[in-house]
Amino acid sequence: MSIVVQKFGGTSVGSIERIQAVAEIIAHTYAQGKQCVAVVSAMGKSTDHLVGMAKEICPHPSPREMDMLLTTGEQVSIALLSMALHQKGLKARSLTGWQAGIETNHVHGRAMVNDVKTETIMNALEQGEVVVVAGFQGISPDKEITTLGRGGSDTTAVVLASALKADYCEIYTDVTGVYTADPRVIPLAQKMDEISYEEMLELAHLGAGVLHPRSVEAALQNKVQLMVRSSFVDEPGTWVKEENAMETSHNVRGIAHDLQVARIKVLGLPNHENTLTKLFGLLAEAHINVDIIVQSEHDHERVDVAFSVNEEEGLEARQVLEAAQAELGFAKILYEAGLAKVSAVGVGMMTRPGVAAKMFATLSEAGIRVKMVSTSEIKISCVVERELALEGARRLHTAFGLDQVEVKV
Amino acid sequence: MSIVVQKFGGTSVGSIERIQAVAEIIAHTYAQGKQCVAVVSAMGKSTDHLVGMAKEICPHPSPREMDMLLTTGEQVSIALLSMALHQKGLKARSLTGWQAGIETNHVHGRAMVNDVKTETIMNALEQGEVVVVAGFQGISPDKEITTLGRGGSDTTAVVLASALKADYCEIYTDVTGVYTADPRVIPLAQKMDEISYEEMLELAHLGAGVLHPRSVEAALQNKVQLMVRSSFVDEPGTWVKEENAMETSHNVRGIAHDLQVARIKVLGLPNHENTLTKLFGLLAEAHINVDIIVQSEHDHERVDVAFSVNEEEGLEARQVLEAAQAELGFAKILYEAGLAKVSAVGVGMMTRPGVAAKMFATLSEAGIRVKMVSTSEIKISCVVERELALEGARRLHTAFGLDQVEVKV
Repeated sequence: MSIVVQKFGGTSVGSIERIQAVAEIIAHTYAQGKQCVAVVSAMGKSTDHLVGMAKEICPHPSPREMDMLLTTGEQVSIALLSMALHQKGLKARSLTGWQAGIETNHVHGRAMVNDVKTETIMNALEQGEVVVVAGFQGISPDKEITTLGRGGSDTTAVVLASALKADYCEIYTDVTGVYTADPRVIPLAQKMDEISYEEMLELAHLGAGVLHPRSVEAALQNKVQLMVRSSFVDEPGTWVKEENAMETSHNVRGIAHDLQVARIKVLGLPNHENTLTKLFGLLAEAHINVDIIVQSEHDHERVDVAFSVNEEEGLEARQVLEAAQAELGFAKILYEAGLAKVSAVGVGMMTRPGVAAKMFATLSEAGIRVKMVSTSEIKISCVVERELALEGARRLHTAFGLDQVEVKV
Repeated sequence: MSIVVQKFGGTSVGSIERIQAVAEIIAHTYAQGKQCVAVVSAMGKSTDHLVGMAKEICPHPSPREMDMLLTTGEQVSIALLSMALHQKGLKARSLTGWQAGIETNHVHGRAMVNDVKTETIMNALEQGEVVVVAGFQGISPDKEITTLGRGGSDTTAVVLASALKADYCEIYTDVTGVYTADPRVIPLAQKMDEISYEEMLELAHLGAGVLHPRSVEAALQNKVQLMVRSSFVDEPGTWVKEENAMETSHNVRGIAHDLQVARIKVLGLPNHENTLTKLFGLLAEAHINVDIIVQSEHDHERVDVAFSVNEEEGLEARQVLEAAQAELGFAKILYEAGLAKVSAVGVGMMTRPGVAAKMFATLSEAGIRVKMVSTSEIKISCVVERELALEGARRLHTAFGLDQVEVKV
């Protein structure tokens, strides 16, 4: 028998009707002779409701208690989905994160999965049961309930698919696949049939929003084939898989944007070998993810470092560094919020001449100033003013020939 | 250091403001140098909301999945109460049923507590933390989430108080103590300063509703002193304790009523020694609690048996017996819902002459027909038509001299 993991996000289980529709999708897969593991998120707005109550009590609730609170959201979903499956005549069993064997480290609010103990799930599958697992949550070595943070349910689905040696993992969401750009802001964006892990990873990191980068990383590491598809519309989605299984085009394949960017400039750091190690070590200890890093050497004595972070973590990053000013020995910190990042992504595109030049020219023609640049084998990212970012993304989508030309029927 | 267990029901934690008020009560106790363990129920109407969603999906949801669903209610409460305690500057730690070591059997929806592993709670108390435990829930030997059914949170509080060797256990509720009758329907009912376990047990069984009988049984067995008091009004409540620590009056001490009674008559059973064993054995296997049992012998061959159950379990009880008609060999079943039970309770009262006579006379004068009677050392119960039950209770309260005479100021 072959195992399929199917993940359903918050909007896919946002109401009783939606949960019943999800049960129908699972029943259809089960009827094809698959062993089914469903991973579900909390129902639509329920997380917001829980967060709202917490904030009423406490401006900065303890991360441990937030995990205790928020994990109830998925627990409600798994129970209701199991009932909906029973109602369709299927055997089904819900499992919380700890029951499903999702073992994490102890970092509340953004725990990492250390291991997956599959015994309980395998036993249930062997008894012909559909297993419904609470996404986003796990258990720490000292039996504390943890959450995986952003994109947690996708990550749960991928690590389960890997541990269970599933044939593939379907990520059901409110869009029909991975697009050449965000179709909500770039109407001419086209759905891709397939995309490599690496490209998806860049698109995910760059704010395409369909999949969280952690889940794509986990899929890449474990060679889990993903299918991103809609739980609302029954049509094929986008396969996310190994590059060597694909026809590569060496072109720009997608344009991504991320509207939550802040930049921190640290001026006048001592020019020592371990300066950057210390600085980014402190940020890592505070679990702050740094994105683009630019260093410029002033003279032999002093360097400036600029880096971008998610705007939500921006002020915390600044505080961490300011508190360590004596230790780091810098002169001054500048903080700028209200920024965004626009990126072009495609395997092999950087070996094609002129891609970077075309990108800068396109933004420049639109009067958009580039504040930071970062390049890799498969992408170019530019940090720009937030209010100009979407216009920039639209122009790049057109410039790189991604706009759909045929009218859809 | 001495440990106090404080239990707060659904109305006591029914809103953010109420949760903050509960945190204040706990902080006050903590400030008196106590080690505090709070046991909380789900917030007010949240259980109803969850049940409503389940019923939308499934008319008869699986008990396992109902437990999975409903236990989220207390988990929300413990997280929010812990946050409210943090906000008051206390160290606090929430624990789900399984984290708190509440080990039960495997009967979903009405599990019995087998054991309490206190290590986690004791460690937290030793670190000066207030421990906030989810009531009503536990974990079965095969690591399934279970619920204790009706009165579950009270039971959690009492078994914890016993296992932790607490000084006493406070049951905070929306009434100020135990009354001589339900003050909502009998305005002249008076609050008692103290009551014996046995009397409380009868009152609880008889539907006084302040404490569930299971929790009083557990308190009696383990000699846990209970204080029933209000979380809304700061005044002394009612101590529930051993009779030998009390001045006993040998009078009727309270009138109870239970408005959810159904009667089942099983007619024409074979008059064998094991007939009753088989009949009530089947009901016990179905986890149906039988209350009053009356047997009458027809002749040497046939007996009739009548018994009362909670009306919610009435139809199920009838189905269980009907399915076993061939095995039991009875002629016919009669089912009557819409009944109620009115009872007079007091340690030693049955040794006083005339109590039963006065009870029957009082009901009879009011035109109330007694359909079943049951007596014990400390109570007389009469099953009557539901619509006459409250009038009967009021008349008994007056007849036994329980009405308050002084006007409260």
